[in-house]
Amino acid sequence: MTALSSPQITVEDYEQAAKTLMKALFIREKYSRLAYHRFPRTVAQFLRSAENQTWKEEDEVLPDVCPCPREGEDPYSIENIPDNLSYELQTKDGIVYVYENAEALSQNRPRSLPYPDLETFAIDLSHVLAMIVDGPTKTYCHRRLNFLGSKFYLHEMLNEMAELKELKGVPHRDFYNVRKVDTHIHAAACMSQKHLLNFIQTTYKTEADRVVLEKGGRKLTLREVFEHLNMDPYDLTVDSLDVHAGRQTFHRFDKFNSKYNPVGASELREIYLKTDNLIDGEYFARIIKEVSHDLEESKYQHAEPRLSIYGRSADEWDSLSKWFIQHKVHSTNMQWIIQVPRIYDIFKSKKLITNFAKMLENIFLPLFEATVNPQKHKELHVFLKYVTGFDSVDDESKHSDHMFSYKSPKPEQWTADENPPYSYYLFHMYANIMVLNNLRKERGLSTFQFRPHCGEAGSITHLVSAFLTADNISHGLNLKKSPVLQYLYYLAQVPIAMSPLSNNSLFLEYSKNPLREFLHKGLCVSLSTDDPMQFHYTKEALMEEYAIAAQLWKLSTCDVCEIARNSVLQSGLSHQEKKHFIGANYLKDGPEGNDIRRTNVAQIRMAYRHETLCNELSFLVDAVKTEAAIGTQPE
Amino acid sequence: MTALSSPQITVEDYEQAAKTLMKALFIREKYSRLAYHRFPRTVAQFLRSAENQTWKEEDEVLPDVCPCPREGEDPYSIENIPDNLSYELQTKDGIVYVYENAEALSQNRPRSLPYPDLETFAIDLSHVLAMIVDGPTKTYCHRRLNFLGSKFYLHEMLNEMAELKELKGVPHRDFYNVRKVDTHIHAAACMSQKHLLNFIQTTYKTEADRVVLEKGGRKLTLREVFEHLNMDPYDLTVDSLDVHAGRQTFHRFDKFNSKYNPVGASELREIYLKTDNLIDGEYFARIIKEVSHDLEESKYQHAEPRLSIYGRSADEWDSLSKWFIQHKVHSTNMQWIIQVPRIYDIFKSKKLITNFAKMLENIFLPLFEATVNPQKHKELHVFLKYVTGFDSVDDESKHSDHMFSYKSPKPEQWTADENPPYSYYLFHMYANIMVLNNLRKERGLSTFQFRPHCGEAGSITHLVSAFLTADNISHGLNLKKSPVLQYLYYLAQVPIAMSPLSNNSLFLEYSKNPLREFLHKGLCVSLSTDDPMQFHYTKEALMEEYAIAAQLWKLSTCDVCEIARNSVLQSGLSHQEKKHFIGANYLKDGPEGNDIRRTNVAQIRMAYRHETLCNELSFLVDAVKTEAAIGTQPE
Repeated sequence: MTALSSPQITVEDYEQAAKTLMKALFIREKYSRLAYHRFPRTVAQFLRSAENQTWKEEDEVLPDVCPCPREGEDPYSIENIPDNLSYELQTKDGIVYVYENAEALSQNRPRSLPYPDLETFAIDLSHVLAMIVDGPTKTYCHRRLNFLGSKFYLHEMLNEMAELKELKGVPHRDFYNVRKVDTHIHAAACMSQKHLLNFIQTTYKTEADRVVLEKGGRKLTLREVFEHLNMDPYDLTVDSLDVHAGRQTFHRFDKFNSKYNPVGASELREIYLKTDNLIDGEYFARIIKEVSHDLEESKYQHAEPRLSIYGRSADEWDSLSKWFIQHKVHSTNMQWIIQVPRIYDIFKSKKLITNFAKMLENIFLPLFEATVNPQKHKELHVFLKYVTGFDSVDDESKHSDHMFSYKSPKPEQWTADENPPYSYYLFHMYANIMVLNNLRKERGLSTFQFRPHCGEAGSITHLVSAFLTADNISHGLNLKKSPVLQYLYYLAQVPIAMSPLSNNSLFLEYSKNPLREFLHKGLCVSLSTDDPMQFHYTKEALMEEYAIAAQLWKLSTCDVCEIARNSVLQSGLSHQEKKHFIGANYLKDGPEGNDIRRTNVAQIRMAYRHETLCNELSFLVDAVKTEAAIGTQPE
Repeated sequence: MTALSSPQITVEDYEQAAKTLMKALFIREKYSRLAYHRFPRTVAQFLRSAENQTWKEEDEVLPDVCPCPREGEDPYSIENIPDNLSYELQTKDGIVYVYENAEALSQNRPRSLPYPDLETFAIDLSHVLAMIVDGPTKTYCHRRLNFLGSKFYLHEMLNEMAELKELKGVPHRDFYNVRKVDTHIHAAACMSQKHLLNFIQTTYKTEADRVVLEKGGRKLTLREVFEHLNMDPYDLTVDSLDVHAGRQTFHRFDKFNSKYNPVGASELREIYLKTDNLIDGEYFARIIKEVSHDLEESKYQHAEPRLSIYGRSADEWDSLSKWFIQHKVHSTNMQWIIQVPRIYDIFKSKKLITNFAKMLENIFLPLFEATVNPQKHKELHVFLKYVTGFDSVDDESKHSDHMFSYKSPKPEQWTADENPPYSYYLFHMYANIMVLNNLRKERGLSTFQFRPHCGEAGSITHLVSAFLTADNISHGLNLKKSPVLQYLYYLAQVPIAMSPLSNNSLFLEYSKNPLREFLHKGLCVSLSTDDPMQFHYTKEALMEEYAIAAQLWKLSTCDVCEIARNSVLQSGLSHQEKKHFIGANYLKDGPEGNDIRRTNVAQIRMAYRHETLCNELSFLVDAVKTEAAIGTQPE
C-alpha cells in the first residue's frame, strides 16, 4: 500500500511539502524539548535519521510529575521542603528572569536558562503560518489524510474480527476496567447538576444559620441568602437551578458563561463554587471531594480538573494553595491543572491592572518565588506537587484586531483596553512555563505541561500557536478546516482532548463532530467532559461521554480502549502511574509499548498505527534526504 | 391557524379521506372497548358527536390492574382467593370458549361473552388496509402530518421560553424526579452486561460446587460447567462475555438473538437467564431482584419486563408462576408482561406441537382455567395479579407468503411447517385476551393489555393489525413509511414505546430514528431500553436512553418530561398509581388532566397538544356531518 505515487502531485511539490512539514516537526520538537513536553519517540527517531544522526534514549525529555504520595504518607506534609536559594527574580517583557544573586541582577546577568527569544519564535510561527496556505503542502496533506482515512477503513474491514478476538482473549480486562482520564474538565462544573442541587439542599438543611456571604457590608446566613433570593431550597429543582446548557447556548458563549451562576444568582456561585470566599471555599472543596470520592470508588476513572488563577492580584496563589491544603482536596484520582482565563481586558477596564505584564507577573512570579524559596511558601510548594499543568481558557470565537508578531508591543507596553490576541497569550504563557520548568528541573522539582484550549472556535491560527507551544490541547475542532494543521497534529501525535457533548451544546452538532474521523486517521484523541454540570445528564459524566460516542459512531471495543489509552498518555499522570496503567514500556511506540493486559487495545491495532505513522514519516524523510543527496552530488 | 383550505386537495377528496379515517377510529374504538383497552376520552367524545350523541363518563372502559399490595401486606398471600366455578372450557378455532356448565358445553351454548368474529374482523382489517393505499386519504394525511410538524415548530419558537418559565416555577419537581417507566424491556436482558458479568463471577466465587446443570444425563457443578467451557470466570470480561450488540448485528436479527448466550454458550443462558432449569431459575430471579432493587432505590424509575411463555407445553404457566412466587420476584417498581415468541414453526419442526391451535391452547387455556378455578391454581392466580399484559415478539423482517384473511386455515387446520403470518398471530392473541378479559372482569379480576412489538421492521401491514388489536405497541418505526397509519396512530393517540438505541444496533441508525419527529407531531411516544444487556453501557440504562435522546435531539426539559408522562400513561401501572404519579385527573385530556407538580410538563404544552388534537378531529367530524346533512336534505 505505498500510495504516494499520485498523478496529481509533482515530485517538486512533494519535495516542497515534505521539506516544510519536516521543518515544522523540527520546530515543534525544539519547543517541546525546551519546556520538557512529551515528544513521541518515533517522530524523534525519524527527525534524527533525517539529520543522519541516531536517536538515543538519553535524549528523551519528559515532564516530571511528582508521584502520588505513598500509602500512609501525608500528602500535605510540609517537611522535607528544599532550602531557599539566594536567587533574585525580575520580570522583563512579561517573562520572569532568574539571577544568581543581587549582584547578577544589578549587572543584568540572568542565569543561563533557555530564555525564549521572541524574534526566533515569530519566525518559527510565520513558517508554520505560511505552510497552512501553501498550495503544494495543502494538496499533499489533504491527500495523505484521505489516504489515512481510507487505509483505516480497509484495516477495519480486514481486521475487525481479529482485533475483537484478541481482546476476548485478554483475561480480566475490558472497557470497564481500563484506566480512563477525563483530560479536560473544569472544577467549578465537575459535579452533575443534580449533585450540585442535592449539595445545596443538604447544606441548607444542616447549616442554614451559618454566615456564608458578605454583601454590601452585611454578613448573611445561608437562610438570609435564600430569603433574599426569594426561594426555598427545598423547592429548588434542576430547572430552577438552570445551570444546564440547552438550545439557547448554541453559538452563545456569553449565555453559556452565565450558566455558572445557579438560579442565575452570582451569590450562589460565590458561596458554592469559589475557593476564596467568606467560608474559605469550604463548600466548593466539599463538593469536589464528593466527586473525587466517586472517582476513587470507580477506581478506573481519573479526572484533571481546572482551577482558576486569574492574574488579577499576586496573592491568588497563596489563597488557592491554602484552600487546597486546609480542606485536604488531594485525591489519587485527580491531577490538577491551572486555568488562566484570557480576560486582561476586563481587569484593565476595572483598573485592577495597568498593563498586560502585570497580569503575567501576578500569574507567574509567585511560582518562581515558591520554586526559589520554597521555605517561604510552604503551602504553595506543597500544592504545586499536585499541579501538573496550565490551561488557557476563554471564548476563542472573539475576534482580535491585533496580529501578533515580533513588532507587537511588549507586555509592559500593552496598556490598551483591548485584549491581546490568542497567540500573544500563548507565547507569554509558554515562555514563562518553559523558564519555570527549567528552573524547577534544576531543583529536582516537578515541571508543568502547557495544555491550552485550542481550536474550539475562532481563527485556525490558534492551532498554529499551540502546535509550537502546547504539550497537548483541548478541543481541536478547527483542525477540520486545515488539512496541513490536521496532518501536522497527526505526524507529531499532539494529543487532543475532545468533548463532543460540550461542542454539541456550544459550537458544533454531534453528528458533525470530527472525533471519529480524527480517531480513524490516527490522531491522538481522548474523550473528556468539559463541564458535567452543564452538559451531562447521568451520574457518571465520563461514561456518558464514552457511551454516546460508542453508540452514535458504532465504535468498537478496540476503538474506545484506544481512546482511553490515549487519555492516559495525554494526562498529567506521573511516569510511574502511566507505567502501571498502560504498561511498563509505554514510552515505546507500537505493539512493543502496549501492555494489552492493561490497555485492552489489540496489538493488531497498535501495529497498524505504528506502521502507518512510520510510513508517513519515512516519505518525508526520504524526500528531504533525496533532495539533500542531489544537492551534495558533484556537478 | 385553520390550514385546511388547501389548493391541492378537493372537497370531495377531503370528505372521502375524513369518512375513511373516522371509520378507522370507530373500528379501533370497538376493539379497544371489547378488550378493556384504554381509548382516549377526547377521541371518544368526537366520535360520539359525529353520531350526534353525547359522551358519558360511565361509558369509558379501562384496563383493571391490581393495585400494588399495601405496605406490610404479603404480595404472595394465597388467602382470599375467589371460589372455583363450575364453568367448562373448550378451544374452538384457536379461541377458548367458556360454558356455564357441562350441559351448556354439550349443547354448544357458550356463555354470552363477546367472542370475536373472524369475518367481521377481516372486513375491518381490510378497510384499514385499503385506506393506507387510497390516494386522497394518503394526500390528506400527508398534508396534515406536515402541518402538525410545522405547527409544533412554530409553537416551539413562540413558547419555548414560556414553557421553561412555567417549569422553573414548579417546586421540587424536575426531570430527575418525575416518574419514568421503561415501557419495553426483556427480563432476560434487563441487567447491564457488566452486571451479568459480576453476577456470574460472584456465583462462581461463592457456589462453585453447586450442581447447576444437567447435560447429557450428567449433573454438572458450576465449576465443571466452566471447566467444560475451558474458562476461568475470574478472567471473564465483557468482551469474552460477548452479549453486547455491535456493528455485526445491524440488520442481522439472527446474530442478535445469539447474543443472549453469554460467551456464546447456551449453557450459561440456561443457568443464568432461564426460569425453568435445574436450579429452579434461582440465579435469574436473583439477578432480576438486584435490578428491581436498583429501581426501588431510584424511586422514580419503573420497568415492565417481559417474561416468556412459548406455548410449547401446557405446564409453562405453572412453572413460571411457581418461579415467581418461590423466589419472591415481585417489586413495586416492576409490572410484568408476558411475551410470546412467534416461533410456531420451530416447535412444529421439532414435533412438539401438531398445529397452531395447540400452541394457542398451551398459552391461553391455563389462564382461563386459573380464572374459572383459582383455588385449583393458586400460584398462577397470585402471579397473574402482577401480569399486566401480553407482548408478541420476534423478527418482524421475516417474510411470510401467507396473506391473512377470513379464508385462512383455522388454527386447528394450520398444520403446515410454515409460520403463520404476523396478523394471524395478532388476531388470535387478541381474540383470546379479549374473551379472557371479559371473563376476568365478570369475576372482578384484573385484565390484560395486548402490547405487541410492531413496526420494528417488515411489512407496514403489521401496523394495521396492531391498530385494531393493540392497546399500545413497541417500536412503530415503520409508521415513517405510511402517512395514513402515522396519522391514525396520532388521531387515536396509540402509545408507542420507542427504543432508538436498540434500533441503532439492529434496524435504523440513530440519526434517522423518527422519535423526535413523532414526538413533535404529537404522537404518544415513550422511551424504553429493550435490552440493556445488549445495547447500553452505563449502570442506568433508561437514563442513558433519555440522556442520549436529549443530547442528540436537543430535547427541552418539557419534551423529556412529556415523554416520561407518556410512559406512565402507556404503562400497565394501576389506575391508583397513575393518579399518584401523573395527577388525580389524568384521564381528562389537556391541561385539566395534568398535574404539573407531578409531571413537570408545562400546561402551555398540554393545552397546545389538546387544542391541536381537537382541531384535527373536528375537521373529520365536520366533514362527516356536512356530508350527512347534505345527504338528508330534501332534494
